[in-house]
Amino acid sequence: MTGYDDGKDAYLARLKRVEGQVRGLHRMVESDAYCIDVLTQVSAVTKALQAVALGLLTDHLGHCVVQAAGQGGDAADAKVREAADAVARLVRS
Amino acid sequence: MTGYDDGKDAYLARLKRVEGQVRGLHRMVESDAYCIDVLTQVSAVTKALQAVALGLLTDHLGHCVVQAAGQGGDAADAKVREAADAVARLVRS
Amino acid sequence: MTGYDDGKDAYLARLKRVEGQVRGLHRMVESDAYCIDVLTQVSAVTKALQAVALGLLTDHLGHCVVQAAGQGGDAADAKVREAADAVARLVRS
Amino acid sequence: MTGYDDGKDAYLARLKRVEGQVRGLHRMVESDAYCIDVLTQVSAVTKALQAVALGLLTDHLGHCVVQAAGQGGDAADAKVREAADAVARLVRS
Repeated sequence: MTGYDDGKDAYLARLKRVEGQVRGLHRMVESDAYCIDVLTQVSAVTKALQAVALGLLTDHLGHCVVQAAGQGGDAADAKVREAADAVARLVRS
Repeated sequence: MTGYDDGKDAYLARLKRVEGQVRGLHRMVESDAYCIDVLTQVSAVTKALQAVALGLLTDHLGHCVVQAAGQGGDAADAKVREAADAVARLVRS
Repeated sequence: MTGYDDGKDAYLARLKRVEGQVRGLHRMVESDAYCIDVLTQVSAVTKALQAVALGLLTDHLGHCVVQAAGQGGDAADAKVREAADAVARLVRS
Repeated sequence: MTGYDDGKDAYLARLKRVEGQVRGLHRMVESDAYCIDVLTQVSAVTKALQAVALGLLTDHLGHCVVQAAGQGGDAADAKVREAADAVARLVRS
C-alpha cells in the first residue's frame, strides 16, 4: 500500500493539468509567443509541480514515516533519512 | 520576431520531453509507485523546466534587452524591469 | 529538550560562519565590489543557510516527529502537518 | 564605477539587518528554541538575502548590461552571459 492512496485521483487530475500546461508551453514557443510570457507560464507550471510534491511529501510523512516511527529503531531512521533527502532535492530543484 | 528563433526546435524538443516526463509521473502515481520515487522524478522535471526557463531568459537578455538597450531611454528601462521581474518569479518558483 | 541538542555546537559554529559571510557581503558592497561577485557570494550564503535548515529539519523529523508518531493520533498528525509546512516554506524561500 | 552606487546605503542597511537576523538565529539555537521556529526564521533570512540579490541584479542589468549593450558586439555578449550565469546560480540556490 502506498501513502497517497486516499487522494490518488486528485493527484492524477493535477498531473493531467500539469501535462496540459506543458503542452500549452509547447504551443506558445511554436507560435513565437513573447519570451517573458513563456517564462511566466514556466513559473506557473513549476509552482504546480512543487505543490504536487509538497502534497505527496506530507502524505508520505503522515503515512510511511509515522508508521515506521511506530516500529522504531533502524526502520524509522532509514525512513527519516530518505524523507530528508527528498526534501533536500526539492529545496535544491 | 522573437528572441528564441534560432533554437526554437531545440526548445520544442525539450518541452516535448518534459511533457513525456509529466506523463511518466502520472503513470507512476497510477501504478502506486513509492512516494519517494515520485518525488525524485518531480525534482527532475522541475530541474528540466528551470533549465528551459534559464535558456529562454539568456536568449531574451541577449536579443530583446540588448536591442532595447541600443535604443536607450525608457524602452531600455522597461525591458530591464520586465526581465528582472521574470527573474524574481523564477527565483521564487 | 530540543531535537538538535547533539549537534548544537556544530550548528552554532555554522551560524557564526554565515554571520561572517554576511559581514563579508557588507564589506564587498561598501568597497564597490563588482555586482556579479556580490551575487555569487549571496548565492553561497543562501546555500549555507539552506544546508543549516535541512540539517535542522532532518534532526527534527528524527526526534520530534518520530517521538510524536510513537504516541500516535492527533499529536502525530499535528507534528507532521507542522513539519510539512516548514518544508513548504523552505521550498518556496 | 559600480552599478549599485545610487542605492548603496540602502543595500548596506539591508545587509546589516540580515547580519542581525543571522545573529538572532544563533541566539535561538543557543537557547534551545523550537526547531520549527528556527526553520521559519531561516526562511525569512533566505528571503531577505534573495531580495537583496534581485535588487542588485536589476541594478546590474540596468547599468552594466545596458551600457555594454550600447557598445555592442563581444562586450555585450560577455555581459549577458555573465548575468545569465548569475541568474542560474540564484535560481539554483
